Amino acid sequence: MTVRIGVIGGGQLARMMIAPAVELGLDLRVLAEDEGMAAQLAATAVGDYRDLDTVRAFAADVDVITFDHEHVPQDVLRALVADGVQVHPGPDALQYAQDKLVMRARLAELGVPQPEWAAVCDAAELQAFIDENGGAAVVKTPRGGYDGKGVRVVRAGSEAEDWFSTLSDGDALLAEELVSFTRELAQQVARRPSGDIVAYPLVETVQRDGVCAEVIAPAPGTTDRHVLVAERIGRQIAEGLGVTGMLAVELFETDDERILVNELAMRPHNSGHWSQEGAVTGQFEQHLRAVADLPLGSTRPRAPWSVMVNILGGPTEGALEDRFTQALAEHPEAKVHTYGKAPRPGRKVGHVNVTGDDLDDVVYTARAAADEFL
Amino acid sequence: MTVRIGVIGGGQLARMMIAPAVELGLDLRVLAEDEGMAAQLAATAVGDYRDLDTVRAFAADVDVITFDHEHVPQDVLRALVADGVQVHPGPDALQYAQDKLVMRARLAELGVPQPEWAAVCDAAELQAFIDENGGAAVVKTPRGGYDGKGVRVVRAGSEAEDWFSTLSDGDALLAEELVSFTRELAQQVARRPSGDIVAYPLVETVQRDGVCAEVIAPAPGTTDRHVLVAERIGRQIAEGLGVTGMLAVELFETDDERILVNELAMRPHNSGHWSQEGAVTGQFEQHLRAVADLPLGSTRPRAPWSVMVNILGGPTEGALEDRFTQALAEHPEAKVHTYGKAPRPGRKVGHVNVTGDDLDDVVYTARAAADEFL
Repeated sequence: MTVRIGVIGGGQLARMMIAPAVELGLDLRVLAEDEGMAAQLAATAVGDYRDLDTVRAFAADVDVITFDHEHVPQDVLRALVADGVQVHPGPDALQYAQDKLVMRARLAELGVPQPEWAAVCDAAELQAFIDENGGAAVVKTPRGGYDGKGVRVVRAGSEAEDWFSTLSDGDALLAEELVSFTRELAQQVARRPSGDIVAYPLVETVQRDGVCAEVIAPAPGTTDRHVLVAERIGRQIAEGLGVTGMLAVELFETDDERILVNELAMRPHNSGHWSQEGAVTGQFEQHLRAVADLPLGSTRPRAPWSVMVNILGGPTEGALEDRFTQALAEHPEAKVHTYGKAPRPGRKVGHVNVTGDDLDDVVYTARAAADEFL
Repeated sequence: MTVRIGVIGGGQLARMMIAPAVELGLDLRVLAEDEGMAAQLAATAVGDYRDLDTVRAFAADVDVITFDHEHVPQDVLRALVADGVQVHPGPDALQYAQDKLVMRARLAELGVPQPEWAAVCDAAELQAFIDENGGAAVVKTPRGGYDGKGVRVVRAGSEAEDWFSTLSDGDALLAEELVSFTRELAQQVARRPSGDIVAYPLVETVQRDGVCAEVIAPAPGTTDRHVLVAERIGRQIAEGLGVTGMLAVELFETDDERILVNELAMRPHNSGHWSQEGAVTGQFEQHLRAVADLPLGSTRPRAPWSVMVNILGGPTEGALEDRFTQALAEHPEAKVHTYGKAPRPGRKVGHVNVTGDDLDDVVYTARAAADEFL
């Protein structure tokens, strides 16, 4: 019997699982939020992932459930598990990707290096944290943030009053040390339910306006020690949190040469898009293999350097098509991946991957191809 | 508007167009022969490709028509063209892939090197050809043969009596010189309607029982002259026959160091499966770009060596699944591509691609992974 993998969420991550699913012969089925989503081709159901009946009906026809995003509520996930559905990553792991306060507390238990942090319930507590941590803090809503949303740098407790005023009783915001970092890195690992883990090369990620703009694999000029530390952190978190499937650990490389955990994602992640062409086993194939409990593939890079540059939405659909053709014409080495999304300014509508022997060349070509869409 | 590409035929070649179509954002639609074909996921219609009304209805909703195979009748193709449908490759080109006698005559006009050949209408004419060509001939039915079917080596005119007896008046068989060759090669090129052509590296193909078993890219130990000759032949045929999309030219490398054209295919071809991982632009993506008249991609190899080994069908579906898991477990470097076909002895149900720096290693791994399915 062909393994049937159900993906909750019809965005670009689900879309990019289609290609490896077809080639491996896995039966991919998507529960999409709407008609016409990025993963439309594999959509076998449309509905609300927060509704247990909808999700339960979808799960009835698959062998394993996985995700395009981390927003499926815990009660829905736990009801599936109680039904006997294979869910990867499972609710116990996903809670750490869903709630940044829970994640910080668990990483502290594991002894994983991370920024100073505290749960703060009001402006006074936040001010106290700021006073103890050099006069500034990063405040985050523990749940629901992504791509820079739900994150704010503050220098006074009062600057988060609007967020505090909407908190329910007993809830808190996450305050984090404003880390002085030289650059951001990301470590990806994949873990099977059976426990096998493989690690990808450590990569450098460049953020602009809180959104991932560019990824270089491997991270240039990294010390051997940092490569080892990052991989160990990735493996430790995957095991310690019981992650199944792909795990992305976003990291700070600090001015004083430490590696600190910034964020976690338990799914294929923007920091791993380079692996589609850049690694023997791309992260979307690896995620499918991991959640289906199939043997994991080699993470060996196919080239000395791989660079990914995101395509952020331009003005109109028509123009995007023309630019697409222009990008292909000017850059025959570029692999252009599109998400089938209507462009809006700043919206991720695709990315470009380039691989090669010379980093400067690879960076130049990837940026130039992505720039055709500006 | 997203380009809509309609593929006639739902086999593995159409299936393998799905992955690049999704990534490029092309809208792939397949007219499949039946439910549950290899390209089922992209099938938007099921019907007989020989029936004009069926094909016309399918073509009404796409921007360009292309093919999984070369069997669509000329009258159907020409009716589409008369309707104003973009058909790539067009009927004028496809006739040369549909009829080996027409192909031989046209290649002779172009001056392309090929085996001695003749149209023979009866056993006496075949005997005369045999007598003139060293006492043997390869007899082929001009139409409908593939994977060794419709091909027979004979040493007497009488050995093809059964085929002659079924010929219509005025029809003939193709008699070809039995070429003494050291090995078989294949040259692929892609050509856009606008005339742009790109060539792939020359590859070596190994046939067993008339079926492609293994491909090595690039062909090991090839002289520079043969590489140039093969590429020139590929370009000359693509231009001379007006091919649009992928063209595969199967070649003999003879004992006396000549390159002769054996067969043509005007679509992605088994000899190019290696390019899925082995080249910057795989042949399925390239075919889509070419038939949609989009700029062609780089054909640069991603590794010094790529090897493709076909998986020929084993006994049962259940066993194939177990072997699949075993192949992934034992060979993390192998890229296993499956066609979603029920296995039958000798039936192509998938292939394995491996790339790397050392030819012996790459050949060993690809064969070992494919052998897991025996």
